[in-house]
Amino acid sequence: MKALRYEGQNKVVFTELPVPVVSDGEVLVAVEVCGLCGSDILKIDSDLKGRDVPLGHEVAGRIELVGPGVKGFKVGDRVVVAHHVPCGDCHYCRKSSPSMCREFKQTNLDPGGFAEYVRVSARHVENVMFKLPTKVQYSQGALTEPLACVLRNIRRVDLREGDTAVVVGLGFIGLLTTLALMKKGVTVVGLDTDPARVKQASKLGLEHGYTGRENRTEAVISQLTTGRGADVLIVTAGPASLIPSRLTWVRDGGIVNLFAGFAKQPPAQLDLDQLYHREISVLTSYSPALEDLKEAHRMIVAGEVDLSPFTKSTFPLDGLDEALRQVRGRETVKAMIIPRKYGAAH
Amino acid sequence: MKALRYEGQNKVVFTELPVPVVSDGEVLVAVEVCGLCGSDILKIDSDLKGRDVPLGHEVAGRIELVGPGVKGFKVGDRVVVAHHVPCGDCHYCRKSSPSMCREFKQTNLDPGGFAEYVRVSARHVENVMFKLPTKVQYSQGALTEPLACVLRNIRRVDLREGDTAVVVGLGFIGLLTTLALMKKGVTVVGLDTDPARVKQASKLGLEHGYTGRENRTEAVISQLTTGRGADVLIVTAGPASLIPSRLTWVRDGGIVNLFAGFAKQPPAQLDLDQLYHREISVLTSYSPALEDLKEAHRMIVAGEVDLSPFTKSTFPLDGLDEALRQVRGRETVKAMIIPRKYGAAH
Repeated sequence: MKALRYEGQNKVVFTELPVPVVSDGEVLVAVEVCGLCGSDILKIDSDLKGRDVPLGHEVAGRIELVGPGVKGFKVGDRVVVAHHVPCGDCHYCRKSSPSMCREFKQTNLDPGGFAEYVRVSARHVENVMFKLPTKVQYSQGALTEPLACVLRNIRRVDLREGDTAVVVGLGFIGLLTTLALMKKGVTVVGLDTDPARVKQASKLGLEHGYTGRENRTEAVISQLTTGRGADVLIVTAGPASLIPSRLTWVRDGGIVNLFAGFAKQPPAQLDLDQLYHREISVLTSYSPALEDLKEAHRMIVAGEVDLSPFTKSTFPLDGLDEALRQVRGRETVKAMIIPRKYGAAH
Repeated sequence: MKALRYEGQNKVVFTELPVPVVSDGEVLVAVEVCGLCGSDILKIDSDLKGRDVPLGHEVAGRIELVGPGVKGFKVGDRVVVAHHVPCGDCHYCRKSSPSMCREFKQTNLDPGGFAEYVRVSARHVENVMFKLPTKVQYSQGALTEPLACVLRNIRRVDLREGDTAVVVGLGFIGLLTTLALMKKGVTVVGLDTDPARVKQASKLGLEHGYTGRENRTEAVISQLTTGRGADVLIVTAGPASLIPSRLTWVRDGGIVNLFAGFAKQPPAQLDLDQLYHREISVLTSYSPALEDLKEAHRMIVAGEVDLSPFTKSTFPLDGLDEALRQVRGRETVKAMIIPRKYGAAH
């Protein structure tokens, strides 16, 4: 089968790999769509040579083969599947840190979603594979995992109807967060230095979108919260160095939410005395829990969130370079790889 | 009556004030004991001239007068009373930030606990005044509020039986936290640069107490957590600048808990990328909620926590300077003011 393989920093090759062999309880999925995630790009940008670096984890496809003993799934089923499975039993899992579970970090799809076929382990089949009705496009189903990341983050910062959030960065994760929050009845102020991104967010229903150059952000937040400040500042992008000065946007008792990595950035200078006296917390959220995958799947199947704005930029398996170029150049907010397409014809 | 009055930075005068007049629903409490809190010392150290600066809020005493319409309390009742009352109805209160409630911040005992008598408002009487059985000493009852602060903090960081916490600073709040955690079955590693404080903590039952100079802290934490790191690093004292390097003591998915102010300290340089990828959060907790006051009162009445180590250093009302000297000089871990005592005889 054709697949992409990481061979070193900025070196991903389009290559031939053997189709994985499935064992007891496992299934083989023919990948229809796999989203390109920011974490894939971070891996590609990094020098991880010599390590096993699976790429592609936002997978939707069709079951091609079913191993002995698989229950509840059959050949031909349309499915989505997540890449990591927490053990459910360790200290991390018991303490609501399932994405820090050692088993979670070690589990993976074989060889990763940027391949014509993936082997799905028995534990994946039992825990993180969900059926997709025919009415739901594969490309929307493939966004189950990122939506689940967003839902877990919102759950952790406890945003509810009537609350106010500032979302910094209106890329894919910022937009998805904005949509999920608006659905919950949370008032969102969205920020992105790129006017095109703000415009796109406005089209998706964001009322309060700014580039920051309007110098209106603080006044708008104040007005929307009768002077209190936002309940949560959700940082999905941008320099860490700006965060300390944004504490004025957050209410007393509020939350600065780190929902992005800050690779290669210097430490941020945080005024801990202010954090304490204003009872502001800094909350992080990395990857989803099982309940969030289930809820994301339910919402997508029920059509409760329209993911079509994110599924239009598709690329053949040998088109990763072009996908990377468009994402890095902000020409597209989300790239979807179609592994069964490749070669000159596409 | 005699009382202490803040008149400016490091200027607190022992003076004569009129006994407060009680109105409908209010009571007058003859103060038997009032603890000296770190926040009192911070106020005394600060230049807040021209502002109303009540001192003393860890109050236990006897009801001297009861205003019209007071229910459930009578003259002679032994009581403890907290100084702030949240409204219970505003956005802060609804979002579990009762100590950030504007009403909470404005309410106070009149004129403050370092006085022979305090007027307790109707809202205080209804919400934050509790009876003290004769078997419980006033001095232990006076510690209801600080114990409640500790209980709320432990609740916010969700420490439970079987978890591991590192407590930095073994002053009054660090020791009280340690005692409350041990009672819950949490394994505690306690740190204080002062060997006398570590020794005192050991006497109170702390098994893993260190000054840091043993260079064993990281190894002990690792051993106690099978290499994971502590669930929570509770910072009750010490320089903010050390916190970033202490992230190695915290497990993935764990918490850095700021349970102290860091007045006049420069910002701490926090590696936000590490916080995100290791899903470490920074949680603060300031003052208690009503449920914590109730639980602290219940524990003290039930004798579930022995506060006697903190009630032995008593000072007359005109002995504040000596109390401050002993606390600042680490000669005592907690000073208790006895307002009805003053003058040369004491």
